[in-house]
Amino acid sequence: MIPSPYLLYLGHSRDPLGVKTSRGVAEFRREDCLGEFRHDDCPLTLGLPRLGMEEAAAGGARTLILGIAGAGGQVGTDLIDDAATALKAGLNVASGLHERLRDQPRLAELANARGLSLFDVRDPPAGLTVGKGYPRPGRRLLTVGTDCSVGKMYATLALTRGLRERGVAADFRATGQTGILIAGEGIAVDAVVADFISGAIERLAPARDDDGWDLIEGQGSLFHPSFAGVSLGLLHGAQPEALVLCHEPGRAHMRGIPGRPLPDLVDCLERNLEAARLNSPEVRAVGICLNTSAMDPETAPRFCAVVEAQMELPCTDPVRFGADSVIDHLLCFEPSASSTIASR
Amino acid sequence: MIPSPYLLYLGHSRDPLGVKTSRGVAEFRREDCLGEFRHDDCPLTLGLPRLGMEEAAAGGARTLILGIAGAGGQVGTDLIDDAATALKAGLNVASGLHERLRDQPRLAELANARGLSLFDVRDPPAGLTVGKGYPRPGRRLLTVGTDCSVGKMYATLALTRGLRERGVAADFRATGQTGILIAGEGIAVDAVVADFISGAIERLAPARDDDGWDLIEGQGSLFHPSFAGVSLGLLHGAQPEALVLCHEPGRAHMRGIPGRPLPDLVDCLERNLEAARLNSPEVRAVGICLNTSAMDPETAPRFCAVVEAQMELPCTDPVRFGADSVIDHLLCFEPSASSTIASR
Repeated sequence: MIPSPYLLYLGHSRDPLGVKTSRGVAEFRREDCLGEFRHDDCPLTLGLPRLGMEEAAAGGARTLILGIAGAGGQVGTDLIDDAATALKAGLNVASGLHERLRDQPRLAELANARGLSLFDVRDPPAGLTVGKGYPRPGRRLLTVGTDCSVGKMYATLALTRGLRERGVAADFRATGQTGILIAGEGIAVDAVVADFISGAIERLAPARDDDGWDLIEGQGSLFHPSFAGVSLGLLHGAQPEALVLCHEPGRAHMRGIPGRPLPDLVDCLERNLEAARLNSPEVRAVGICLNTSAMDPETAPRFCAVVEAQMELPCTDPVRFGADSVIDHLLCFEPSASSTIASR
Repeated sequence: MIPSPYLLYLGHSRDPLGVKTSRGVAEFRREDCLGEFRHDDCPLTLGLPRLGMEEAAAGGARTLILGIAGAGGQVGTDLIDDAATALKAGLNVASGLHERLRDQPRLAELANARGLSLFDVRDPPAGLTVGKGYPRPGRRLLTVGTDCSVGKMYATLALTRGLRERGVAADFRATGQTGILIAGEGIAVDAVVADFISGAIERLAPARDDDGWDLIEGQGSLFHPSFAGVSLGLLHGAQPEALVLCHEPGRAHMRGIPGRPLPDLVDCLERNLEAARLNSPEVRAVGICLNTSAMDPETAPRFCAVVEAQMELPCTDPVRFGADSVIDHLLCFEPSASSTIASR
């Protein structure tokens, strides 16, 4: 486990989506966060005290969380310099980037010399195999999206919490670095060997027979030219009984691809259902989760109502309005005949 | 480059599909193959002289090609024992399995002690990045399939040769271990980090402006529960102008998944076209390539004719009957307006 309290890194970031890992940890592990580290040119904040590395260490912080990410997860020289400063101040360093901290000789030497640890949370577990798609018992929900970074993890966490509040056994299954840092476990599906995408998810959410739910965090989008392969393998490995479609209204283009429009909600949901039927013939959509954080308080609920009418499914912003309507719809269905058979 | 002549490994294999790498090298690099190595319980042959390791080395062989593969590419103890024997006999060893020869301490030590090399052809190149899907100039054809191991590589090689015979510039772009061993270069797309599937193919078949074709070897199937993610990322990265659908009639179930039927040809082609349109709005299907090797000489051409009528596309077995009909259809189209714009 990664020792807390944490110092959350924002660095030089100017893009709110680029700091989503630090933001997620700040929101869902608030009690474990001592402060945030940012340079003077960073206009973003998580609402935590701004601390230097030495200052944070003196205040009791144990680990710097490098919670920033560009597409592809490269490690820049700024990041390495700052990670080195953190180690010199006595902090462990954790990262969810594709490039591994341990592969940076300067960081590896510093950590070794000072008895500190480097945590690369994107490391896949050993011994992954290909997925098989055989029917397996258990109830599983997957969040899918029109794009990357539209709120799939938030929705999944909100649904998990909502189910637990109703006394239903429910587990969040993390598939990305932020989710793993929040949950303390999971598999970063975009970092596994391509052959093992669906197999990794079959391992992450194996057969269960307690009538509880696995709520699996989706990644990317079937419509994203960078990541659709990951999204499809994840969809097949999840073998979901239920899908929740996630979307951020008003986004100008697909994340990282200027000029590329987002898909239509109806098309996106239909394509996901069609692809899911390969392993889950009875899959159904149970709701739409929007990230309305950019909308004013009057517009957001009206927009949800419009989408709800258009899609004929409950629609909410789970962060703003809770996830009850989606959970109601999820629980009003009994398991389908085929999943009951599969679970015997 | 991997030193030839080669000794091709069949080991204890009893499954013709499991030795497809050795078979492919035997067919397309015949002049570089000295013999085959198989144990007494192996009923398969490539039609090459059966040789022991010492015997092959004495005869001039330079490298043992471990051309067998199970799904997921695990290295068994039999394989390691035989590879060790080869090294002791003075042969280099090449492998396309996921598990790397160099990670087997016994093999690494033997190779090092004897000044021999271990070639892991599935190693991805360094510095891969995410794909972007931006329109890029060049003419690209991709083979797609109803299943794994249905003849996509053979079809791609036959189409490449056919185009060259007509004086058209054409390059085979290998995406699997067999293709890489045949071509001497390529990227094993199923072995890259999942985030980089489409990016790897954008790198493998970059922009070209000589009016020549890149013929990209497909992998897996959108309908295979183990590998669909790889197939989709490959399809998006290829950004193909033309698709050729490959199929082996009569297969009882999807490769490695007993009980799972193959998709219908029409559905399979339509789903591939739909997915390809994300990056190639004008993509078109130009033919069907069947592997009819299990059919008798009367049935095979009749079956091709039936599929041709059903699909309204040229249909051939490229190994048995050549690929001319598909190439005719491919070349009868001028580049679409949009690809002409993209290539300026």
